[in-house]
Amino acid sequence: MSQTRVSVLGAGNGGQALAADLSRRGCDVTLFEHPDFVSGIAPIIKNGAIRMTGTMEGVFPVRATASGEEAAKGAQYLFMVSPSFAQRPLFNEVLPWLENGATVVFIPGNFFSFEASKLLREKRPGVDVTLAETDTLPYACRLDEPGTVNIWGMKQKVNIAALPADRTRSLMEKLRPFFVLDLWESPSTLAIGLQNMNLVFHSSGVLLNTGRIESTKGAFRFYSDGITESVGKLQQKIDDERVATGKAFGIELKSALEFMRDCYRMEGNTLHEVVANNPAYSSHGNDAPKSVTHRYVTEDVPYLLVPMLELASAAGVRAPVVDAVVTMWSALLDRNFREDGRTMKRLGLEGMSVQQIMDHAERGF
Amino acid sequence: MSQTRVSVLGAGNGGQALAADLSRRGCDVTLFEHPDFVSGIAPIIKNGAIRMTGTMEGVFPVRATASGEEAAKGAQYLFMVSPSFAQRPLFNEVLPWLENGATVVFIPGNFFSFEASKLLREKRPGVDVTLAETDTLPYACRLDEPGTVNIWGMKQKVNIAALPADRTRSLMEKLRPFFVLDLWESPSTLAIGLQNMNLVFHSSGVLLNTGRIESTKGAFRFYSDGITESVGKLQQKIDDERVATGKAFGIELKSALEFMRDCYRMEGNTLHEVVANNPAYSSHGNDAPKSVTHRYVTEDVPYLLVPMLELASAAGVRAPVVDAVVTMWSALLDRNFREDGRTMKRLGLEGMSVQQIMDHAERGF
Repeated sequence: MSQTRVSVLGAGNGGQALAADLSRRGCDVTLFEHPDFVSGIAPIIKNGAIRMTGTMEGVFPVRATASGEEAAKGAQYLFMVSPSFAQRPLFNEVLPWLENGATVVFIPGNFFSFEASKLLREKRPGVDVTLAETDTLPYACRLDEPGTVNIWGMKQKVNIAALPADRTRSLMEKLRPFFVLDLWESPSTLAIGLQNMNLVFHSSGVLLNTGRIESTKGAFRFYSDGITESVGKLQQKIDDERVATGKAFGIELKSALEFMRDCYRMEGNTLHEVVANNPAYSSHGNDAPKSVTHRYVTEDVPYLLVPMLELASAAGVRAPVVDAVVTMWSALLDRNFREDGRTMKRLGLEGMSVQQIMDHAERGF
Repeated sequence: MSQTRVSVLGAGNGGQALAADLSRRGCDVTLFEHPDFVSGIAPIIKNGAIRMTGTMEGVFPVRATASGEEAAKGAQYLFMVSPSFAQRPLFNEVLPWLENGATVVFIPGNFFSFEASKLLREKRPGVDVTLAETDTLPYACRLDEPGTVNIWGMKQKVNIAALPADRTRSLMEKLRPFFVLDLWESPSTLAIGLQNMNLVFHSSGVLLNTGRIESTKGAFRFYSDGITESVGKLQQKIDDERVATGKAFGIELKSALEFMRDCYRMEGNTLHEVVANNPAYSSHGNDAPKSVTHRYVTEDVPYLLVPMLELASAAGVRAPVVDAVVTMWSALLDRNFREDGRTMKRLGLEGMSVQQIMDHAERGF
């Protein structure tokens, strides 16, 4: 560990938390930010360190840079922690310098490994890079200011898979030292994208609370007050469509209800019940989006719902409710999410059969 | 007028208001209720009168009955004031007794004249009955108790059309004495259905306030607080689809924005603005549905949105937002509104071209 050279790509709150935490555990850490946003890492460049407050305290050395070359050269492991819209720009910056045998982990992935694999094939043919995804960010954290990150919680486990999936198990062995939490093996990066619970809760929850969000500027608890019986019912239909889509690709996804029960050890027969009774959601006060142009929508519709719809369509699975949610948000935000989003074409999966997609997820391209 | 024998079909608040008001103006009024709901008219049968309070005061003689024969025999004008789901059962009760030359006016129609015309052709071939529709109920009223109706407002005008539409003008001359408010000629009963503003505001407004409705039990003002900027924006898209559907049938529908400006003499560039600034909506206190199983949904989705979708489809007009609203409500209420609703088949218009539908609306079947 002490000699391991790792890079963290993306210097938002999650990226700064991971960079500091990896440094705390003895890694030689480079934190990379896209040159367009270099101002955000200026204090870290200056101090050569990140301060953590909250559940992990201390000041830990981190080398910050806006040079893709510096971030990628000699780095065996690269962890990208970023919103989905920033994944491609960040990846393109390091792409020319990625070395044979390197691994890039997208935290969370939202199907980006397929897009990254396509970019690799096009621009770095012959170079062998392992890509991987998790379904969620491990840290609950917030930047107090650039260079100071407050951490108040950690997930107990994170699902992970490699692309190709036949490398997942060996990758997990290598990655364990980097993560304090449990890594759980997922069948493939397809499963990782489909297992992201944001797909179920976020954009539909905002949609069915649109009037309230705008009228109260988000002065309510998104989960505890916003996921009412009917909202939860619609989300159950979304979840059914999600699970059916996975099944068509041979993936036994955990239902949202099972996920919530397992994750929070909550009882309840409906999504509304497991959420409404959940102290993890009720104790933080008002946390609803203040407007509908929130990442719950702008991130999750194009990068989670659209690829799910495309996968469902490729497999002949009906997903009318997810389709309706995408239609409503496209109308509400005057955006063509079906084209702007993570389409099969963008993922390099266009025109493939279900079996071909499964084969590519398992054994690569 | 004094000798005119008229019947009012349906004894809800609107039916009792109209019955009393027609009696007030000297008509010989029979109020008919379906035999299954005869208990609702028991006090009127007993007293032979309806009491009005509010803007029209007094006690006016009304003959109440649950006999379709009594209601239809000898009645030249029959006014049906009922929710859409009750239109067919009510109509079937009077259908065997309708006389040549009679007129039945559906208030509001929601496309029912087509269904009634189909029933007439099937069960009373050769009998000439004029059907007509309005787009809204003239009275703002509420039952204090059966037999006592409180009236607090009247619309300034009501759009009306006959089926066949080439009879609208002569019918309007005959109907004027029965209505204190202005009757406005509409091109056809197709236009009447499409001009119903509930299509634009109701079910979408509930949908985008679902969390709030269930969380607060409707403790907000549906229009003033619920039609926020984004809600109004989505409703504008619904309105665009509605207007485009009308246009495909040669109908120049008034946009919802024009309608609101004209109706309430309000200024504003968006639906949110004309609604938010409107004292007619803000002065009544909380008026939102207390649950999502409200007639704003159960009435308007099957009887307004579904026929609009079917007309759009017949004309090749895209209506993705209305389609998404119907999908969401079908999922939320576990109902197949596309089959339960007022389909082209039910309206007797199945398989017809746009021109055939227009011809039938204009000249009858």
